Amino acid sequence: MCGITAYCGKGEALPFLMQGLSKLEYRGYDSAGITTLENSQLVTIKCKGRLENLENKLKSHQLHGHVGIGHTRWATHGIPSNLNSHPHTNQDETIALVHNGIIENYRELKDELIKKGYQFQSDTDSEVVVLLLDSLYEGDLLAATQKVLKQIKGSYALCILSTLEPDHIIVAKKDSPLIIGKTNDAYVAASDIPALLEYTKDVYFLNDYEMAVLSCDHIDFYNHDGQKIEKTSTTIPYDLEAAKKDGYDTFMLKEIHEQPHVIAETLRGRIHQQHIVLDELKDIDFSKFNKVYFVACGTAYHASLCGAHVLKKVAHLPVLSEVASEFRYNDPLIDEKTLAIFVSQSGETADTLAALRLAKEKKATTLAVANVLGSTISRDADYVLYTCAGPEIAVASTKAYTTQLVLLILLAYYIAQNLNQDVHDDVIKQLQLIPQYVDNILKDEPVFAQYAHMLKDMHDAYFIGRNLDYASVLEGALKLKEVSYVHADAYVAGELKHGPIALIEDGSVVIAVATQPHIAQKTISNIQETIARGARVILLTTHHEEVKNVQNTYYLPDVEPTLQAILVAIPLQLIAYYTACLKGCDVDKPRNLAKSVTVE
Amino acid sequence: MCGITAYCGKGEALPFLMQGLSKLEYRGYDSAGITTLENSQLVTIKCKGRLENLENKLKSHQLHGHVGIGHTRWATHGIPSNLNSHPHTNQDETIALVHNGIIENYRELKDELIKKGYQFQSDTDSEVVVLLLDSLYEGDLLAATQKVLKQIKGSYALCILSTLEPDHIIVAKKDSPLIIGKTNDAYVAASDIPALLEYTKDVYFLNDYEMAVLSCDHIDFYNHDGQKIEKTSTTIPYDLEAAKKDGYDTFMLKEIHEQPHVIAETLRGRIHQQHIVLDELKDIDFSKFNKVYFVACGTAYHASLCGAHVLKKVAHLPVLSEVASEFRYNDPLIDEKTLAIFVSQSGETADTLAALRLAKEKKATTLAVANVLGSTISRDADYVLYTCAGPEIAVASTKAYTTQLVLLILLAYYIAQNLNQDVHDDVIKQLQLIPQYVDNILKDEPVFAQYAHMLKDMHDAYFIGRNLDYASVLEGALKLKEVSYVHADAYVAGELKHGPIALIEDGSVVIAVATQPHIAQKTISNIQETIARGARVILLTTHHEEVKNVQNTYYLPDVEPTLQAILVAIPLQLIAYYTACLKGCDVDKPRNLAKSVTVE
Repeated sequence: MCGITAYCGKGEALPFLMQGLSKLEYRGYDSAGITTLENSQLVTIKCKGRLENLENKLKSHQLHGHVGIGHTRWATHGIPSNLNSHPHTNQDETIALVHNGIIENYRELKDELIKKGYQFQSDTDSEVVVLLLDSLYEGDLLAATQKVLKQIKGSYALCILSTLEPDHIIVAKKDSPLIIGKTNDAYVAASDIPALLEYTKDVYFLNDYEMAVLSCDHIDFYNHDGQKIEKTSTTIPYDLEAAKKDGYDTFMLKEIHEQPHVIAETLRGRIHQQHIVLDELKDIDFSKFNKVYFVACGTAYHASLCGAHVLKKVAHLPVLSEVASEFRYNDPLIDEKTLAIFVSQSGETADTLAALRLAKEKKATTLAVANVLGSTISRDADYVLYTCAGPEIAVASTKAYTTQLVLLILLAYYIAQNLNQDVHDDVIKQLQLIPQYVDNILKDEPVFAQYAHMLKDMHDAYFIGRNLDYASVLEGALKLKEVSYVHADAYVAGELKHGPIALIEDGSVVIAVATQPHIAQKTISNIQETIARGARVILLTTHHEEVKNVQNTYYLPDVEPTLQAILVAIPLQLIAYYTACLKGCDVDKPRNLAKSVTVE
Repeated sequence: MCGITAYCGKGEALPFLMQGLSKLEYRGYDSAGITTLENSQLVTIKCKGRLENLENKLKSHQLHGHVGIGHTRWATHGIPSNLNSHPHTNQDETIALVHNGIIENYRELKDELIKKGYQFQSDTDSEVVVLLLDSLYEGDLLAATQKVLKQIKGSYALCILSTLEPDHIIVAKKDSPLIIGKTNDAYVAASDIPALLEYTKDVYFLNDYEMAVLSCDHIDFYNHDGQKIEKTSTTIPYDLEAAKKDGYDTFMLKEIHEQPHVIAETLRGRIHQQHIVLDELKDIDFSKFNKVYFVACGTAYHASLCGAHVLKKVAHLPVLSEVASEFRYNDPLIDEKTLAIFVSQSGETADTLAALRLAKEKKATTLAVANVLGSTISRDADYVLYTCAGPEIAVASTKAYTTQLVLLILLAYYIAQNLNQDVHDDVIKQLQLIPQYVDNILKDEPVFAQYAHMLKDMHDAYFIGRNLDYASVLEGALKLKEVSYVHADAYVAGELKHGPIALIEDGSVVIAVATQPHIAQKTISNIQETIARGARVILLTTHHEEVKNVQNTYYLPDVEPTLQAILVAIPLQLIAYYTACLKGCDVDKPRNLAKSVTVE
């Protein structure tokens, strides 16, 4: 998830490009760069770190020009560095581009280009696009772009600038956002509306596979085959503050809704011909491990519990999950036969980092699962897998959690494959459908908003589940606790009778998850015991299960049980979210909490 | 823990003996028996099962006589059966006795008696006493009893009846209770005051090592050396209902106070010359295990977490703890190299039993830790260790929990010994001092009752701890939840910042345990974070730790860290207890809960 901007007009490009990037910094902030066309030459200034580093650099390097592109980066390929920063240019510096997205087949394309004699400056997938464009250019930049788009696989929003055709910018998109705006004296483009709003409220939306050519006073649109198409502009009805949240009231809600997209991004390129492909791990001999440890904190710990559960189930490996603050002080029994997996959104969580270092000392093979590329944990681990959630602004994690789940499930099946365990084609197929399932569940948002009315005046909530569902309810309870301050706790459903049921009284709210076919009926029996004591129940289950007496049952799609934690996360997030809204809580910034816990 | 009664007077013995046993049935109910002296002969009726079985038998076998003894049994040696029931007699049926306690050296004594030609009818340690008495009798029953008492090691309350000296009963005690009462026409004795109260409120208390000879119209007391001593009677100030509870308001409080005694009973005979001796397990080759699983429910699960923690620490074995309802449906990876330990007070917990059967199917070596001898789990397991807590009446477990802890810690060090790990003499010494430490902590009861005032009006309480202390706070929170209905939950202290701290607001109560020297300061730092958000804190820690800002700190004795869970249990039980009392809850029978969960 990066942010891109483009300007083609009669004024100076720089002011628009920079204010746009500052509005897009929420999409990434590990490096930034600008290219303008000045005196028929491309001039590029780029810089590692946050946007202010670029601003400082621009104080001593004045940039001029009426055409330009900009980029703020959230690394997915290649660590944050000056070289890996965008814009990227071809060798003779006639073409520059910025890219947001992931080029799945960049390795193959890179190999071919190298064979043709191209040299690469960076480790990014994006540089492939500009060199490919160079190799396919035959006097018509639009035609060359069209050819490039037919060769690249993956997601992209592209803005392309060239000295060869200096009066316009070509833009294109697929699966990554790109909005075009019309001002009095320019056409502009950016990843998101906030970057445009200071200049215009009149925008054009590009659809996937469409392209546009921006000039200072007109714009042309093209479809996938290069045929001209017509588009009408739309006027944005809301202001800048709302626009940062993509029209949503809060970042949390925006991020909840991003999940189909970021899950698809996390899956992208990782399933090939009914096989899971995790090239990052291809050197690991999984048969040498006699134990797999999962270590994490908070929400990432709950994702780890799911991952561990699935791994044990499908790869039949002994697994252990431990909270990082416990693991590091608990003298864990690990050695060179241990695979230790560390999950952290920020990649900077202090306890998780200390746990990782301990595991390395003890000779374990270490694998990081992180969202922030180049973060300390991802650098320190022997291997790393990145979720593609993009920056998460809301303190309560939503999309980082579900992408962790996706990646850990991919990992479990990948290990199973490697150990020659049977992995059904059906599971792989269903994994690919997860973004669609999540999208469908999001359509039932009003149902979950309604459930929140049951909770808004409650002091307590009790979550119950068994097996994989127990990890889900732990996360559901945490989410509710974090954003709404309802004292929510999760219990193993089978433990209710051993104590917690004493808390249930008339009117108590119990939220039960029962998605695992072999024990769902047991959980449903436990629900009945709470109903007998006066509880009101919200049940999330599948169509497998017959349910009596429960007022509120939401049926989840009937997918492979190992994938259910991803789906059930959505209702639980939305219940927490709407409860917090009804209570008037500051959803994005809950009291007492910080986004990334970098101290013990 | 058994119950015994004795009658020596002018009326019929049977009515007193039977009403006494019915009042003592809370002390044991797996078999019962009566012996009276009728026409210069001992007549014994005994019966497996609850007292009503004996009552039914007595309908067809009329028992008469002015001298008699009775017993209701809670098995500790030998399964419940007619043969193992008391009273026990010698071969020519001239001496009968009832015994409450544990004879530690009964195996040695039994071997010697067998060498002398004695034949044993039962598996009990008590039969040894009557045959030893027979072997030492030289015309003076009191003198013979004195000799017996010098040879037996362990705990006992004894009532002895003989055709050779038909007009009196000899009683003696050490470490087991025995109260003597004086009625208008008899002297009576029983394990506990309720058994006497219908007949008299005038009682004598025997001290350890003292004896008494009861006749119909007088009584003589003797010290250990057989010298006559004087005693004055005391009048019991309370009624029957209170007396059943030993003068305590509730069974829970009574059972809390029984802990020094039952812990001592659980340790009894299991430490010999600085070595832990668990003869029940002497056939097990511990070196064959590559993994130890602990499986239990509720409070027993929390004891298991402690046991697992200590075992891993001292024996360096990989350990896993799982809730039974999860384990049984979770396809656990176990095989013949697994030692699976099942902990259950009742020995009948449905999920634990099912888990045990699954482990057996999968060829694990199974070990039960139970309180009820002959219970299903103890019978089904390959090996069994019994806690000696006696019957626990209050639904919320207290003494069963601490005796489970003691036994599991003994087990951990026993396994460490067997694997030739270094076990410090100091640990063994401190283990033996635990009853005394617990007794000292109980003396601070008013302190904990005062802490309860902080909780009585609270809806919530938050327990935090790390490492071994986390298991302790889980149990502390469960206890509070069960009896006072305060929504209490326990968190790993290091996880607070990852979510739960959002719940802390001005006036919240946080109960922290920090007894483990290497991480206590970390927990104390976490406490400060809650104080900064307005929390009021109760801290249970050791004198190692310096603590600022905390209003209520209770310092625990500075014992070996692996033993701290036993000690810290006492304040946590009392805090829960007094909170429930202040709230007017039915402490012994909390709403929605049952003592033994024999369904899923």
